[in-house]
Amino acid sequence: MANQTITAPAGFLAAGVHAGIKASGAPDIGILVCPKGARAAGVFTTNRITAAPVQISRRHIRSRKVFAVVVNSGNANACTGNKGLKDAIAMCRMVAGLFGDGKVRPEQVLVASTGIIGHRLPMDKVRKGIEAAWKGLSPSADGGLAFARAIMTTDTKVKQAMRIVRLAGKNVTIAGAVKGAGMIGPQMATTLCFLATDAAISSNLLAKALKAAIDQTLNRLTVDGLQSTNDTAFILASGLAMARPITRPDRAYQRFCDALFEVCQDLVMQMGLDAEGATRMFKVVVCGAATKAEARRAARAVADYPLVKCAVHGGDPNWGRIICAVGSSGVRLDPTRLSCRLDQIYVFRNGRPCRFDRKAASAIIQRPFHTITVLLGVGKQSEFCYGVDLSKDYVRINAEYHT
Amino acid sequence: MANQTITAPAGFLAAGVHAGIKASGAPDIGILVCPKGARAAGVFTTNRITAAPVQISRRHIRSRKVFAVVVNSGNANACTGNKGLKDAIAMCRMVAGLFGDGKVRPEQVLVASTGIIGHRLPMDKVRKGIEAAWKGLSPSADGGLAFARAIMTTDTKVKQAMRIVRLAGKNVTIAGAVKGAGMIGPQMATTLCFLATDAAISSNLLAKALKAAIDQTLNRLTVDGLQSTNDTAFILASGLAMARPITRPDRAYQRFCDALFEVCQDLVMQMGLDAEGATRMFKVVVCGAATKAEARRAARAVADYPLVKCAVHGGDPNWGRIICAVGSSGVRLDPTRLSCRLDQIYVFRNGRPCRFDRKAASAIIQRPFHTITVLLGVGKQSEFCYGVDLSKDYVRINAEYHT
Repeated sequence: MANQTITAPAGFLAAGVHAGIKASGAPDIGILVCPKGARAAGVFTTNRITAAPVQISRRHIRSRKVFAVVVNSGNANACTGNKGLKDAIAMCRMVAGLFGDGKVRPEQVLVASTGIIGHRLPMDKVRKGIEAAWKGLSPSADGGLAFARAIMTTDTKVKQAMRIVRLAGKNVTIAGAVKGAGMIGPQMATTLCFLATDAAISSNLLAKALKAAIDQTLNRLTVDGLQSTNDTAFILASGLAMARPITRPDRAYQRFCDALFEVCQDLVMQMGLDAEGATRMFKVVVCGAATKAEARRAARAVADYPLVKCAVHGGDPNWGRIICAVGSSGVRLDPTRLSCRLDQIYVFRNGRPCRFDRKAASAIIQRPFHTITVLLGVGKQSEFCYGVDLSKDYVRINAEYHT
Repeated sequence: MANQTITAPAGFLAAGVHAGIKASGAPDIGILVCPKGARAAGVFTTNRITAAPVQISRRHIRSRKVFAVVVNSGNANACTGNKGLKDAIAMCRMVAGLFGDGKVRPEQVLVASTGIIGHRLPMDKVRKGIEAAWKGLSPSADGGLAFARAIMTTDTKVKQAMRIVRLAGKNVTIAGAVKGAGMIGPQMATTLCFLATDAAISSNLLAKALKAAIDQTLNRLTVDGLQSTNDTAFILASGLAMARPITRPDRAYQRFCDALFEVCQDLVMQMGLDAEGATRMFKVVVCGAATKAEARRAARAVADYPLVKCAVHGGDPNWGRIICAVGSSGVRLDPTRLSCRLDQIYVFRNGRPCRFDRKAASAIIQRPFHTITVLLGVGKQSEFCYGVDLSKDYVRINAEYHT
C-alpha cells in the first residue's frame, strides 16, 4: 500500500521513539524533518495561558524557512515559567544542531508538547530521545507512523490522513497526523495537528489555507468545551512536487484548499470518534439564525450540554434537552417557528413536538455519526459544530488520571 | 421537634399526593395555601424557551394578593403550545375554585411544573390530584413534608430549610423547599424553589429581598451549566407573625434579608450535595479580577469544566485543569501573578507550581465541600460560584433516562 502517513509528500522524513517521558513505555518524542526547508504556517490556542512551546513556536513560525518540527507527548511544558521556555528553546537547538555545520538555526525548528501541565521536562531523557529519533528518521510509511504514534496521549487509535490533488499536471500530496482526545474545544487550532505537503505555495497563502481548513474542521469539534494551553496546528510545504508555485488565490489555490480541507475533515472525524470515552459523534447545524455568531453559539450550547451528550450516549431522541440548550444560549429565536430534526426526522416543528418513529430516530442516534439540525426561524444565517457523546468511560479516564 | 417545613410560618397549609403523573407512584402534586392571602414575589428562568407555567405565573405574580401555589412534578408542561398554557391556567382555576364562593380568582394562584419536556399534562389525573391534595391540606410538619416530597424529580433527598428571626420583639419564620437535581445553571432562579414567611413586608421589598437572596445562593450553583425551561422561585409572605410591617429598607429589612439568605444558602448546599450523581460540592472563588463580570465568567468556567469536575470526583489536586479553564475563559490575568489555592493549600503561586502536601490536598478535595480560590492578579474584583463533581452516576442517570 502506498505511504499514507505524514511522510507521503515529497521531501519529508519522520521518526518517533520512546524517550522515557511517559512511564508506560509508549513513544513520546517525534521529529518531522524537511531537509531542503519548507514554508510553514501555524495556528495556536487562544487560551490566555499558553505553554512554553506555543510561545516559542509563535516566534519561530516567522522564519522564512522551517526545517523541522520536534514534538513530545507525556508532558505539556505548560505553567513551567522561564525554565520551561529555556527547555523548549533547547529542544529546537538540539534538533538544529543535528543538521550540522550551522546549516539550520534554532529559530528554523518548531516545537510542540502535550501531556501533563506544570512539570519540568526531563531534559536528559528528551535529549537522548531526540538523538535516537534523529537516527531513525525515514521517508517511509514506518517513519510517518512512528511520528503519529509519538504524539498520542489518551488516544486509542493513530490518526492520520492523506490526499493527492492534481495541480497543473502534477500530483501534489497533503498528509497529516493529529492527536486527541480530551481538553478539546473549538475557537483555536484544537489539539496538536501536523500537516505536510509537497506543494509550492507562498507563506501568506499557506497561512490563509491552513486557517480556513482548521476553522471548518478541527475548530468545530468540542469534546469538553475548552481549548488547552498547548493547542497547535502546523503545516510545512516542501515545494518538492515540482508543481507550479501557488502565488495567487487562483483555481490551483482553491483546489489545494479543498484537498487540505478534506485531510483536516478526515482527521477531525477520527478525533471525534476516538475522543475520551466517546462511542459516537454528532454534528449540530443551526439554521435560520439572526447572525453567524448566534448560530455558532447555539450550536456550541447543544454540543457542549452534558444532558444532550448523555442522551446521545443512551440513543435517546431527547429533543427537549436540545431545545432547552438552544433557549438557554440566549440567541434570538421564534418560539412558534423553532424546529428540530435528527438527520431527516423532524422531532419538533414550529414550536411543537412531532409524532415520529421513535425506533427509527433512536437507530439514527446510535449510528457512529448523525446530524442534529435546529431551525431558529428568525434569520438566514447558519453555522455548525461537532460534538461527541458523554459516557461513563469519560469520567473513569478523567477521574482516575492522577497528577 | 418543631415544624421545620414550609408550613412553619404562621398562616400556611400544605399537602402533597400521588396523582399518577409519575409512573413510579411517587408524589407528584403539591399545594401550598395561605387562606388569608399573601404578598408574593417570584424570579424565573432566563431561558428563551419558557414552560407554560412560567408564562402564566409571570402574569399571576402581579396580583396584589396570592392565595396558593400549585405544583406538579413528572411533567414540565414545556414546549406544549397553547394547549399547555390552557392546562396551566386550568390548574390555577381548579385551585381557586376549591376556595369556594368566588373568594379567590385564578390570577391569585401561582403554578409551577417540573419533569419531562414536550408532553401534555394528563389533566384528568391532575384534577383528581389537586382535589385529593386539597382535602389533605394541613398546617402541620406532615403537610409541609408531603409538599416538599411532591416537588422532587431525580432528587434522592427532601430539601427543606427554616430560620426564625427576631424582628421588633416578634419571632418571624422563613421556610422553604426546593427540588434539584439536574439541568441546573446559574443566572436565573435555579430549579423550583418555594419559600414562605409570616413576615409582613411590602411587595417591592419582598421582591428585592428574594432577588438578592437567590442571586447569592441558588443562582450560583451549576450542575450542568444551563438553566431549564421551568426554573422558578416564589416567596409568599402571610404577615401573620404580627410583627411590625417592613416598608422601608431599614434594619428590620436587613435582618429579614439575612435570614432569607440563610434559608436559601441552606437549600443550595442541599441541592449541590444531592445533584445528579454528585458525591461532593465545591466553591470557586475568583479574586483579583479586572471586573465582576470577568471574575464570574472565570469562576463559571472552572465549575463547569468536565475535567475539573472529574478531578474533584477522583480526589485529584489537578490544578493544571483549573488554570487551563481560567485561561480558556478569556478573562484578563497576569500569568506571573496567577495563583491557585485548595482551601488554604497553595498549589500554584505567581505563575508557578508549588510544592505541596499531595495527601493533605487530596483529603481536602474528598471532603463534602471545599473551596478552590484563583487569584488573577490584575484587579480588585471577586466573585464566586458553586460546582459539583462529575461521576459515572451522572452519566448513568442521564443516559438511561428515556423520553
